[in-house]
Amino acid sequence: MKIVIVGGGAAGTRTAIELRKRDRNSEILIINEKNYREYSPCGMPFVLSGDVKNFEALQTLDNKFYEKMKIGIILGKKVKDIDFKNKKVIYDNTEVDYDKLILATGSYAFVPPIKGLDSESVIVFKDIDDAKKIHEKMKKIKKTVIVGAGLIGLETAYAFVKNNIKVTVVEMLDRVLPVMLDKDMAEIVKKHLEDKGIEIYLNEKVLGIGEKVKTDAREIEYDLVVISSGVRANIDLARKVGIETEFGIKVNKKMETNIKDVYACGDCVECMDFITGKSIMSQLATTAVRQAKVLAENITGRDANFAPVLNTSITELFGLEIGTTGLTVARAENEGIKVITGKYRGKTRPEYMGGEDIVVKIIADEKGKILGSQMIGKSLVGRIDAMCLAILNKMNVKDLANMEYCYAPPVSQEFEPMYIACEFVVKKLR
Amino acid sequence: MKIVIVGGGAAGTRTAIELRKRDRNSEILIINEKNYREYSPCGMPFVLSGDVKNFEALQTLDNKFYEKMKIGIILGKKVKDIDFKNKKVIYDNTEVDYDKLILATGSYAFVPPIKGLDSESVIVFKDIDDAKKIHEKMKKIKKTVIVGAGLIGLETAYAFVKNNIKVTVVEMLDRVLPVMLDKDMAEIVKKHLEDKGIEIYLNEKVLGIGEKVKTDAREIEYDLVVISSGVRANIDLARKVGIETEFGIKVNKKMETNIKDVYACGDCVECMDFITGKSIMSQLATTAVRQAKVLAENITGRDANFAPVLNTSITELFGLEIGTTGLTVARAENEGIKVITGKYRGKTRPEYMGGEDIVVKIIADEKGKILGSQMIGKSLVGRIDAMCLAILNKMNVKDLANMEYCYAPPVSQEFEPMYIACEFVVKKLR
Repeated sequence: MKIVIVGGGAAGTRTAIELRKRDRNSEILIINEKNYREYSPCGMPFVLSGDVKNFEALQTLDNKFYEKMKIGIILGKKVKDIDFKNKKVIYDNTEVDYDKLILATGSYAFVPPIKGLDSESVIVFKDIDDAKKIHEKMKKIKKTVIVGAGLIGLETAYAFVKNNIKVTVVEMLDRVLPVMLDKDMAEIVKKHLEDKGIEIYLNEKVLGIGEKVKTDAREIEYDLVVISSGVRANIDLARKVGIETEFGIKVNKKMETNIKDVYACGDCVECMDFITGKSIMSQLATTAVRQAKVLAENITGRDANFAPVLNTSITELFGLEIGTTGLTVARAENEGIKVITGKYRGKTRPEYMGGEDIVVKIIADEKGKILGSQMIGKSLVGRIDAMCLAILNKMNVKDLANMEYCYAPPVSQEFEPMYIACEFVVKKLR
Repeated sequence: MKIVIVGGGAAGTRTAIELRKRDRNSEILIINEKNYREYSPCGMPFVLSGDVKNFEALQTLDNKFYEKMKIGIILGKKVKDIDFKNKKVIYDNTEVDYDKLILATGSYAFVPPIKGLDSESVIVFKDIDDAKKIHEKMKKIKKTVIVGAGLIGLETAYAFVKNNIKVTVVEMLDRVLPVMLDKDMAEIVKKHLEDKGIEIYLNEKVLGIGEKVKTDAREIEYDLVVISSGVRANIDLARKVGIETEFGIKVNKKMETNIKDVYACGDCVECMDFITGKSIMSQLATTAVRQAKVLAENITGRDANFAPVLNTSITELFGLEIGTTGLTVARAENEGIKVITGKYRGKTRPEYMGGEDIVVKIIADEKGKILGSQMIGKSLVGRIDAMCLAILNKMNVKDLANMEYCYAPPVSQEFEPMYIACEFVVKKLR
């Protein structure tokens, strides 16, 4: 069998690896538009910050690995067409046969309509080339403006501060991390960032970049502007060849497109939201990795389904972890779902052991079924994953309020913050 | 209503507090055999180690709190009899009326049959008086022997090492933390402790304490011997007055004993094991706290049930966290349950971010239903709680193997160790 994968990012590369784990004989070929192999895009801000020593460290798979796994890879070639009838992928003047085709074309940076983007002092931050440009500029600049207060924007802001560069963040919406957090939780993060010296302007639109960055409320001095206003699915190729798309490529549970023997995964596909049942994007490395496994199972003759998602995610900014899973209140209200919330502010460990601050917000429907959770503080990783499991199991806050948990003074509290927050919801339900 | 609580430890005190939260008017009286108010017994080893500055810090509720909450407390009085017919509790020559009675008589230290225990240089470690004695002795000694490698034994060993005292631990069973861990996992902990200079002898029985500590294999020099060989339910009073007991007080889901208006909770009661359905002990602070809530709900006219338990627990020894939930392989085999296990050794975070070691073991039945998990490493708190939720929801490793999780390089891996371990089980199921 000949398997061709269009795209060599996390989704494409993981698919190749998961396929090879299950199938020793098939030919596997990645065709990547970019001139480099897979790296960890999530790690880029931490190279900029100095936490990771260089960009090479983000490329954890070396050439030998591809050779050993017998994964072919063509770099710097853009697939321009697909001939479904004859099962061929076309780039330049070359045709490549396939039995199974996987589109892992990823995403591109959304760029808001701002005047003056063509300046050398403006970088749209999406991939490692952009990161390297920022890294180079960093050595020479004193003040920067970041457009967009999403994950990448704030992680980049953190990196600039670590390099003693003044940072101003301008966000069009009413809060930082608007996809992850409700306004009350986002305020905690905003204050934390402001305490570290970051200037943040919300509800503010950047109109143009000239001598200064001009917003609808002020002018801001800068040496460098970084645009990080979110990403969109890369679906030009899919659209051109007649694969069904809307804001992403449409796939079924098996990761199949509407064309026989053509699959898709990663940032370019739409997923199903677990709670609303609607199509949403899930442009997370974890989603790509998980879809790659489903794809590999199905292509190698097993039967696997990709489950609806909660878009569970996390970050850390100046030592403060921020995590989320499921619906925010804002999104629930958009969907017409009435919610009840509980919020616990406490400590991760007993005061006498020097416990750190933690805030947990729980969002439930009117019957108490848990729909979402947001957390800010320390030791969040497993807790976010626990609430993800609770939502997927359609658990009720009544059961969670007195749930079993682990406790020892060096690591946790006699009371688990997650479940206290659930108890607060239960009280409101009465 | 007059509510009398026999026992002023975690279970009794939490019951009083939870009752008061729900009922402003009833009289609430705690009668405590000990001469002091509630403190955190789990914190004791960390005072000995110096991580917590003094024993007073473990007593988080002061006299004012009891006054403010209108919780009466009688200290240093042992209840000798109960008159169910006339609803009276009797201590000394005093009778106290009750409408509702709660037995929270806790547990006592099991002392193995060893000769020479009556020496001044031997301390059976159970409560804060014992801890204070050890604390006092610590200043003068150079070498100590700990009998029992359970949680308290090892936490105390840690405390001695922190005070530059040589420690030898003697354990009758074939591994450390035998309740929490299987042998393969326990070996990791043993090696970690040995690396810190602790001498550990397994499969070895202490026969007597004289000039030296004599085991069935050797003689060990000592200045102090600490006995920490587990605890047993304190059920003398219950037995005497005809309350149903076996190895603990028998209660139903509502925490009622077989006698009308008499309840029990905490270390003195039996619980139901979630997986086997059998009676087990759950002598954890978290269990006491959770039972107190159920009790308070039921006494104040609501309807609550205490759910079967997994005995989820955790500790930290020299920076290494050790957690468990559900069945160990050893316990499963004792119950005649055939199991399949998966074990993942990896990192909490990417190598390029300086990830720390983590080992996760997953135990499932032959159909893949998850029954237990053991973990050693860092950032375990929420992860253990997540696996606890997975077991209680009767999840299958097939679903967990490709489960959603959170990821960001500063805090976690692109692959979640819990779910990789589940994937290993899935592979064995095929």
